[in-house]
Amino acid sequence: MSEQPVVPSPLRFTKGHGTENDFVLLRDLDGELDLAPDRVARLCDRRAGIGGDGLIRVVRSAACPDAAAALAEDPGAEWFMDYRNADGSAAEMCGNGVRVFVAYLVREQLVDLALLDADGPGLPVASRAGVKRVRRREDGWFSVDMGGWRFPGGDAAVAAGHDATVHVHGLEVSRPALSLDLGNPHTVAMLSDLDELTALDLAGAPLVEPVPVDGTNVELLVVLDPEQAGGELVGRLAMRVHERGVGETRSCGTGACAAALASRAWAGPGAPDVWRVDVPGGQVEVRVLPAERVELSGPAVLVADGTTTL
Amino acid sequence: MSEQPVVPSPLRFTKGHGTENDFVLLRDLDGELDLAPDRVARLCDRRAGIGGDGLIRVVRSAACPDAAAALAEDPGAEWFMDYRNADGSAAEMCGNGVRVFVAYLVREQLVDLALLDADGPGLPVASRAGVKRVRRREDGWFSVDMGGWRFPGGDAAVAAGHDATVHVHGLEVSRPALSLDLGNPHTVAMLSDLDELTALDLAGAPLVEPVPVDGTNVELLVVLDPEQAGGELVGRLAMRVHERGVGETRSCGTGACAAALASRAWAGPGAPDVWRVDVPGGQVEVRVLPAERVELSGPAVLVADGTTTL
Repeated sequence: MSEQPVVPSPLRFTKGHGTENDFVLLRDLDGELDLAPDRVARLCDRRAGIGGDGLIRVVRSAACPDAAAALAEDPGAEWFMDYRNADGSAAEMCGNGVRVFVAYLVREQLVDLALLDADGPGLPVASRAGVKRVRRREDGWFSVDMGGWRFPGGDAAVAAGHDATVHVHGLEVSRPALSLDLGNPHTVAMLSDLDELTALDLAGAPLVEPVPVDGTNVELLVVLDPEQAGGELVGRLAMRVHERGVGETRSCGTGACAAALASRAWAGPGAPDVWRVDVPGGQVEVRVLPAERVELSGPAVLVADGTTTL
Repeated sequence: MSEQPVVPSPLRFTKGHGTENDFVLLRDLDGELDLAPDRVARLCDRRAGIGGDGLIRVVRSAACPDAAAALAEDPGAEWFMDYRNADGSAAEMCGNGVRVFVAYLVREQLVDLALLDADGPGLPVASRAGVKRVRRREDGWFSVDMGGWRFPGGDAAVAAGHDATVHVHGLEVSRPALSLDLGNPHTVAMLSDLDELTALDLAGAPLVEPVPVDGTNVELLVVLDPEQAGGELVGRLAMRVHERGVGETRSCGTGACAAALASRAWAGPGAPDVWRVDVPGGQVEVRVLPAERVELSGPAVLVADGTTTL
C-alpha cells in the first residue's frame, strides 16, 4: 500500500459584513464539518487567517443539536445560524450577523423569498437564542425582530432618566447613564455634541458605576434633529460603542437598539418609535414594534467567496 | 438596443502572510487591471473588505511601466511586485511581502524553480526599489537579499553603541539606541529581559531623541542566548516593533534586519553573522552576506483563494 499525503480538503467560505461588523461564513448545509474552537480562531485571525469579528456556520437546523430548542419553538426554522466568537467560543446571537446570514441564504437560493416579505411574519432563523424573524425591505435592508427589552433600574430609573454614571477617557466629567437589558447588558449615556463624541477615547473600557457584576456594553450617543420620513417622525442618533470584552467596534446591533430605546425613554410621551442610528460602520434603523418588541434594520453585504485550507 | 446591467467582473484574489504581515494578492499577469487607490483601500479594509496590511499585484514586468528601472537592471526580472499600502498608495518594497509574492509564483507555476536554488544567484523579482533576489531553502523558507545598510551616526555611533535615546510608555527610563538605515530609517534599543519587552506599551509612538526629521521605525529587543546550528554560531533575539506611520505590527522585515545588525555591532568582533529573530508574528532569520549585504529569511503562507466584486 502506498502512503497518501494528508491534504486538508478545502473549505468554502464567504466574507460578509453588516455595518462593518464582519464575519466568515462557512457553508456546511448538512453539518459535516468538524469546527473546533481553534479552527474558528484560525479562520477569524485577521492576519494569519481570513479575518472576522466572528464566524457563522450555515447549517440545517435538523443537522445541529444546538438548534433543538429553536426547532421546538418553530419547526419551520429550517436554517440554524451557528454563531461563533472570533476566539472560537459559541455565542447566542448577533444582530448584525443574522442579516448577513439571511443575505447568504437568499443569494444561494436556500430560502423561499416569500417568507421574507416585508408584510409577512418573517423568515424564522434558528439561533442559540431561539428563533429570530427576518424580513426584507424594498430598499434591500433586512429587518430582524430582536425581541423585548427591560430597564433593570425599573420605572424609577426611567423616570429619573438614569441609574448609573459612565466615565470615559477624554471626557472631563462623568455622565448619567441608563441601563438596558436586551438579552445582554447595556449602559447608555448622552453627550453634548458630535465634537464630544468624536473626541472620545474608547481604547480602554469606560468606567461604569455602580460596577456591573457581569460587565456591560457602553453606548455614547448624541441626539440629532428628528426627520419626517414616510409619514412618520424618525428620531436620529449618532453613537459609538464599547463592547464588553471586545473594545470599541464599528457597530453593535443590540447597542443601537439600546441607544434608541434610552433616547425614546428620555424624550418621553410623543417620542418617535423609529430611530436612525449612525454608527462608525454605517447606519441602522431601530423600530419599536407593538407589544414592546424592537426591530433592527440594516444592510448586509457579501464581499468575497473562496476556499481555504486553514 | 437593450441595456445591459453593469456588473463588476469578479476579481481573483489570494490572501497570504509572512510572519503575520498579511497581504491581498491580485492576479493580473498581463496588467489589465485598473487598480485605483480607492479600490486598493476597499480591498485592504479589514471589515468592509478582504483585509490586509497591503496589496500585491502579480504582474509581468513588461506590462508595467513602474518596472522599467528594475528591467533595465536585470532584463530577466520577469515578474513585478506591485506593492500598495493599505491606503492605496504605491510603496517601494516589503521584505515580508516579497516572500509571499514568490510563494504565489511558485504555487501557480509561473517561475522556473531552478532559479530559486539555495546555491544559485536567486530569482530576480522586479520592484519599485529595483531587483530583489529570492532563493528557497530546504526548509521551505524564502531568503531575500535586502541589500546594504548604513549607520547614520557613523563609526562614532557604532563605537559608542548609541547615537539616540528611545522612551517607550511602560519603561521607567529612556534607553540608549542606535540608528540604522536600510532604505528606511530604524532606531534600535536593547531592553533588560523578556518581561520588560512583554510589558511595553507600544500603542503610541516611542519618543526618539534627537527627533528624526522623517520619523523612524523603532525596534525594542532582548538578546537571548546564542546557539550552535549547522556548524555556525547563531545569535538570537526577541523583538517588538513600532512602524513609522502604522503603529505596532506583528513583524517588520527591515526592522528584524536592523535589530540583528545593531546587536551584531554591540557584540563586537566575533559576533554571529546569523541571527534568529522572534517577532510577535513568528520567526525570521537575518544573515550578513559577504560584501556587507543582509539577507532576510522567513516563511510565506498562502491561506485562501477566492473572488470578490469589490
